[in-house]
Amino acid sequence: MSLNNLHNIKPERIRSLVAAFDGEQLLAELDALGAIGWKPGAGLQRMAYSDTDLEARRWVLAQMQALGMQAWIDPAGNVIGYLPGGEALPALAIGSHTDSVPGGGKFDGALGVLAGLACVRTLRSQDVQLRHPLLLIDFAAEEATTSASPTGSLSFVGGLTQTALDGPGWDGRSTAALLADRGFDVAAMIANRPPMPIAAFLELHIEQGERLACAGVPIGVVEGIVGIRRYYVHFQGQANHAGTTDMARRRDALVMAAPFILAVRDAAVAHGIVGTVGRIEVHPNAPNVVPGRVTLDVEIRGLDDAVLDRVETILAAEAARCEGRLHFGHRKEPVLADPNLMAAIERGCKALGLRTMRLPSGAGHDAMNLAAICPYAMIFAPSEQGVSHAPEEWTQPHDCINAGRALLAALLEVDAMLDA
Amino acid sequence: MSLNNLHNIKPERIRSLVAAFDGEQLLAELDALGAIGWKPGAGLQRMAYSDTDLEARRWVLAQMQALGMQAWIDPAGNVIGYLPGGEALPALAIGSHTDSVPGGGKFDGALGVLAGLACVRTLRSQDVQLRHPLLLIDFAAEEATTSASPTGSLSFVGGLTQTALDGPGWDGRSTAALLADRGFDVAAMIANRPPMPIAAFLELHIEQGERLACAGVPIGVVEGIVGIRRYYVHFQGQANHAGTTDMARRRDALVMAAPFILAVRDAAVAHGIVGTVGRIEVHPNAPNVVPGRVTLDVEIRGLDDAVLDRVETILAAEAARCEGRLHFGHRKEPVLADPNLMAAIERGCKALGLRTMRLPSGAGHDAMNLAAICPYAMIFAPSEQGVSHAPEEWTQPHDCINAGRALLAALLEVDAMLDA
Repeated sequence: MSLNNLHNIKPERIRSLVAAFDGEQLLAELDALGAIGWKPGAGLQRMAYSDTDLEARRWVLAQMQALGMQAWIDPAGNVIGYLPGGEALPALAIGSHTDSVPGGGKFDGALGVLAGLACVRTLRSQDVQLRHPLLLIDFAAEEATTSASPTGSLSFVGGLTQTALDGPGWDGRSTAALLADRGFDVAAMIANRPPMPIAAFLELHIEQGERLACAGVPIGVVEGIVGIRRYYVHFQGQANHAGTTDMARRRDALVMAAPFILAVRDAAVAHGIVGTVGRIEVHPNAPNVVPGRVTLDVEIRGLDDAVLDRVETILAAEAARCEGRLHFGHRKEPVLADPNLMAAIERGCKALGLRTMRLPSGAGHDAMNLAAICPYAMIFAPSEQGVSHAPEEWTQPHDCINAGRALLAALLEVDAMLDA
Repeated sequence: MSLNNLHNIKPERIRSLVAAFDGEQLLAELDALGAIGWKPGAGLQRMAYSDTDLEARRWVLAQMQALGMQAWIDPAGNVIGYLPGGEALPALAIGSHTDSVPGGGKFDGALGVLAGLACVRTLRSQDVQLRHPLLLIDFAAEEATTSASPTGSLSFVGGLTQTALDGPGWDGRSTAALLADRGFDVAAMIANRPPMPIAAFLELHIEQGERLACAGVPIGVVEGIVGIRRYYVHFQGQANHAGTTDMARRRDALVMAAPFILAVRDAAVAHGIVGTVGRIEVHPNAPNVVPGRVTLDVEIRGLDDAVLDRVETILAAEAARCEGRLHFGHRKEPVLADPNLMAAIERGCKALGLRTMRLPSGAGHDAMNLAAICPYAMIFAPSEQGVSHAPEEWTQPHDCINAGRALLAALLEVDAMLDA
């Protein structure tokens, strides 16, 4: 049966197809994949291109093949499954990643890949072909354990450079050395391109915050991936003996920096974004020496560049007021989701009776690289207590299933909507 | 000639004896001793019981012997020179240390030892014998490079314990292991005692602060060695993703700690003592993670225990207000100098026309160990810009000489005053 007649897909049609979505199988696969690289007490150890990461990718490849997909591993280690479409159209892509941080949980990334498999399983079991070809992708090295992260999706869209690979990876060597050691051809990774034109990318991921869980809403519709601006703020004081240096003659760099730490918090709160001093380096950092030099690593994140500009101006002024100097670090622009795709997700969820909430993504995702070649949208599933990148990371079973069903509904909506 | 007639020593007599003090020789010896273990660009490297430290001690021993003193090295490595007195009295002791911090300067400790040699040289050249026997001591391991520091003077007064030696020394091993490696007999160090009763101890040392230099006063008369109270203040927040965790839901331990850092400064200033947050440990200290745990190393120093009590109460309350917890660390009581000895220093300086200023010592010194067995007083020489424990440490040549002359005048005053 073809879905060619789905240009204006009916809610009942979505409901009847999604009714065949096998949620129990999805949960079983979360457990099966989650066991690969799991260390009791230390959580998931599936760092990019590690043995366990590569084992998990081969497992995903086998699942794709078992569902009758054409499937392969590209030069970057991305696992790609392909289903032909009913029309001569660009592909729709769905997917996420299966690598983890050291000590991660079993939902981050994996839920999106396994939900994609569950969508394909549903389509196959119902003998349904989409109008568009479908690519299901398990991107490699999404987590910031490699220097060019998300590395797999960056390579996939043709954006990878040698320079980015020269930085350090999680095992202390350069990412390029790590890749060479695992038999990867770095030149081929840099030359990598998408296997076919892509019309849209949909990614399901856990929220990693607790907005959905606190609001009791099962589906998040991502408005965009926030821009990140990093700063280094230096405070130059004078190291001196903590016993012999009178208070009036001190230039204590930590005392200079303390009000700035509070100013970052205040500016973020006042402008509705997040702002963090996550790292502090104090020299010489000895109990009996007045701190002579402090460096703070500061970042702010938000969806609106104009707001980030305003906060940046405030932070530079506050740094100067505290006799510090603000230096500009790494900067990533906000990457907005496609409004039509967001609306398609919302229509699909409405058909299923699933409540949705729009929210920004505070973390980076593969979708942000895919945005270089196609429109994208993302679905968030609730994270209990907002915990992620930790063994305790948890998404309720019914939330996992609902998110998978929402992905299928959105896929059907988008397949009907695009190129109509 | 005996000085037995000096019970009421006259200013003119002091002036005439001190006129023979050889300042140029003192400066030459500061250079000669300062060359042992000096590394260009890295300053003085004469850490306790290192090859260079032991070489410097042998050099001091040879100088004592050349001046006709009986001289020996005791089980702790203290170099002790002895001159008989004219009467059957307990000894007067003078001295300081010649070990250094890594990257120290040539005045810290050394000035006191070499000025002691210069005093003995003057007495010998003028054929003067004190009423009291004289001990000139170059104490070992004064700097906090060993776990029991000041180790040599602690051993000298019989206060050393095995436990104290089990802590780490400057080379990463335990102090006991460092000592064993250099052929020291730890049991003998613990059993060590003064070779004879001591009536008073006078120590000349550089100030290591800049009060004297700022006031343009050549001689500091130390009121006492400040008490030190160490605290560890823990702030327990919740580590979380810096992008996905809303400001309102954060428990940022660094934001909790920042006001406390300022509270330490404010409490110290308000009470006329010094207070320092010298060390901060942030977990996980990553730019993209909300700080989950912060520990501050805090210390306050002052001469008056009642004032320290008041500030301690304030800091505990401020920690609680910032949702932190203050834990008590190491504590050293203030060790007050002897008023009669202080007055004797001031009389001696007045005879020489040298202005004096009373001030506390914010740093620890060998004198604080000697206080366990006898009254003590200290003379401070000005430190240019208050710099110490650094290659740039500097005391002006005329200040070195004046401090040495003051030590000799004080010694003559004390010799006349005590046991009269």
